[in-house]
Amino acid sequence: HNSKLPNVGTTIFTVMSALANQHNAINLSQGFPNYPSNQKLIDLVNDAMNNGYNQYAPMSGNLDLRLAIANKYQRLYNSTYHPEKEITVTSGATQAIYCIVSAFVRPNDEVIVFKPAYDCYKPAVEVNGGKVIPIQLSAPDYKPDWNEVASKLSSKTKMILINSPHNPSGTIWSKEDMLRLQKLTEGTDIIVLSDEVYEHIVFDGEQHQSACLFQDLKQRSFITASFGKTFHNTGWKIGYTCAPAELMQEFRKVHQFNVFSVHHPSQKGIADYMQDANTYLGLNQFFQQKRDLFLSLIKDSKFKFTPSKGTYFQVLDYSDITDENDVDFAKRLTTEFGIASIPLSVFNLNQKDDKVLRFCFAKTDETLLKASEILNKI
Amino acid sequence: HNSKLPNVGTTIFTVMSALANQHNAINLSQGFPNYPSNQKLIDLVNDAMNNGYNQYAPMSGNLDLRLAIANKYQRLYNSTYHPEKEITVTSGATQAIYCIVSAFVRPNDEVIVFKPAYDCYKPAVEVNGGKVIPIQLSAPDYKPDWNEVASKLSSKTKMILINSPHNPSGTIWSKEDMLRLQKLTEGTDIIVLSDEVYEHIVFDGEQHQSACLFQDLKQRSFITASFGKTFHNTGWKIGYTCAPAELMQEFRKVHQFNVFSVHHPSQKGIADYMQDANTYLGLNQFFQQKRDLFLSLIKDSKFKFTPSKGTYFQVLDYSDITDENDVDFAKRLTTEFGIASIPLSVFNLNQKDDKVLRFCFAKTDETLLKASEILNKI
Ligand SMILES: CSCCC(=O)C(=O)O
Ligand SMILES: CSCCC(=O)C(=O)O
Repeated sequence: HNSKLPNVGTTIFTVMSALANQHNAINLSQGFPNYPSNQKLIDLVNDAMNNGYNQYAPMSGNLDLRLAIANKYQRLYNSTYHPEKEITVTSGATQAIYCIVSAFVRPNDEVIVFKPAYDCYKPAVEVNGGKVIPIQLSAPDYKPDWNEVASKLSSKTKMILINSPHNPSGTIWSKEDMLRLQKLTEGTDIIVLSDEVYEHIVFDGEQHQSACLFQDLKQRSFITASFGKTFHNTGWKIGYTCAPAELMQEFRKVHQFNVFSVHHPSQKGIADYMQDANTYLGLNQFFQQKRDLFLSLIKDSKFKFTPSKGTYFQVLDYSDITDENDVDFAKRLTTEFGIASIPLSVFNLNQKDDKVLRFCFAKTDETLLKASEILNKI
Repeated sequence: HNSKLPNVGTTIFTVMSALANQHNAINLSQGFPNYPSNQKLIDLVNDAMNNGYNQYAPMSGNLDLRLAIANKYQRLYNSTYHPEKEITVTSGATQAIYCIVSAFVRPNDEVIVFKPAYDCYKPAVEVNGGKVIPIQLSAPDYKPDWNEVASKLSSKTKMILINSPHNPSGTIWSKEDMLRLQKLTEGTDIIVLSDEVYEHIVFDGEQHQSACLFQDLKQRSFITASFGKTFHNTGWKIGYTCAPAELMQEFRKVHQFNVFSVHHPSQKGIADYMQDANTYLGLNQFFQQKRDLFLSLIKDSKFKFTPSKGTYFQVLDYSDITDENDVDFAKRLTTEFGIASIPLSVFNLNQKDDKVLRFCFAKTDETLLKASEILNKI
């Protein structure tokens, strides 16, 4: 069979995690925590199973959870999403992204993607026959040049995919960036897909600039988010998307025939857990401590860095160590030194290699300490 | 925005369940059990959460579960699927079907679908630009006319979707049907998608004719299945698909960017639960008792029926009661009599109305008794 996605291989996250396991390396590659999940949340999911939440959730999600999400947006951003019509619970943000793209992108439509980008964006566009229009951002601050963005917009532009806090770079977009995006797309039919899965992981007192904070932009935006990132359970695969009702209606046409609905007991457990807003309000602090510990431990290493501003990733520049390409170096770090990371070139246009690797610091302090001992020796 | 799926409304299952809730009706419409799930299985999932199965499962699924699935195919059908390369765990059979279609169907490809058909098939084909070629089957036995099938095959035929035991009719395909299908597709590149979610619910000592039993057919087939149906947890959304490695590789390219992976604790819990094969071997008997009870209770009603041969659905013919169309009658039964069912015309070509309704008997004996009291009065 002629492949519809001839260039898709196994995702780098699977490749690096497998290599890490094979070589018994510390795995700071794929983004997931290695500390225990929250016991109270686990118990609430168990309660939900024992209280009969084992049959189909409503297609758009458990209503308690949609209410909890709506409350969160009201509280954090003073932004209203109607729980019945403007919020849908999804099987992680990835499934939301895939279905948003599928619901709107037709053959030959153009979709603007900023590189480096999380690797699910491009195949979602391409399997629907769309064309990715990449805009390369550069280390260390990964700021978009808005004149370049303007020059890439055309009547074919169907969608713009944005992501702040940004995986893999750990940078965030400013209010000015969001205002520029709003201005550029004003009066157009362009859909903005704002991947905000790291919204609760922003450092140094900065504010997350959610697309919902910008009234006009919000009218054409889908926001996607992930409880896997928020509540340290990446394997539960519960996320959600918010959008104005008219857009959400089209999304649900695909969603209901893609997965129909999502793991019900987890939805109910998370809804109950979110009744206490501290469950998500405290995350910035929790992860900032992780970041600060990790960076203080490696400050005398040969790696150079700008501290991450958001996400649970830190990019390290190894150009003072070797001029190997980043894929080779990441593999060698795993097999020879016992520490796995993610090379950034795999997310770049033409595999642009800035000699940087991404390390996940959502790990126990003990793991971060062991990791730093290795990194300091390199 | 111009809709990619202009004709897709809310699925009939959501519509009828909502109407049932609104009118406090007995809900025999959407297919899900109303008795408690298995306590041992719930406890095993809770154990998995407490034992740290809360981060990403491998993209293709928890390996213990893939091994348990492979063992099942060996034991029941003497058929070998390689757990690493030929089995992928999915977010229910629906997500498997959506991604199988997305991985292979291109604009203008033709996909043969037998009607009445479960309502996720057609949108999955259409969102990918494919064209459904419907073949209408008829009450009461819903047997395909293989000459008609042969006449619909062409060089454009990319895929054939089959489903036995058959939802909504409760009929099953015979060995002869499968051999005809094998013969018709021999030497072609046509992919067979065999939706076998009710494989463990077959009555009267009949054998489920899995596509994997037919050596040549198996080479071009995806089988999809659902633990929601098997273990009475439709809300957990865990299913899987099996196919030869070459086909599975293309499937995974889409799957990994659609959901990436599936609820990990449920996968581990189900894997442990399946160590005892009686967990699925006893299902035929369990559901045959339900069917026999339901049919004995309504044998003197004005509804006519042929006993269901598989699935947890029974189709009832109401032509002796009224000549209303089936959608109107199903709604009136819900709002005036307090019992909800699914009208079959919504699954048919041109809404062909055979004056039949589908009732789900995966319910407590008490619910079936109450339902029969209503049905006997009509
Ligand atoms: C789906 S595996 C990738 C996890 C992740 O979000 C990351 O590492 O960037
Ligand atoms: C996804 S709701 C439909 C459930 C079902 O399988 C059916 O009722 O046929």
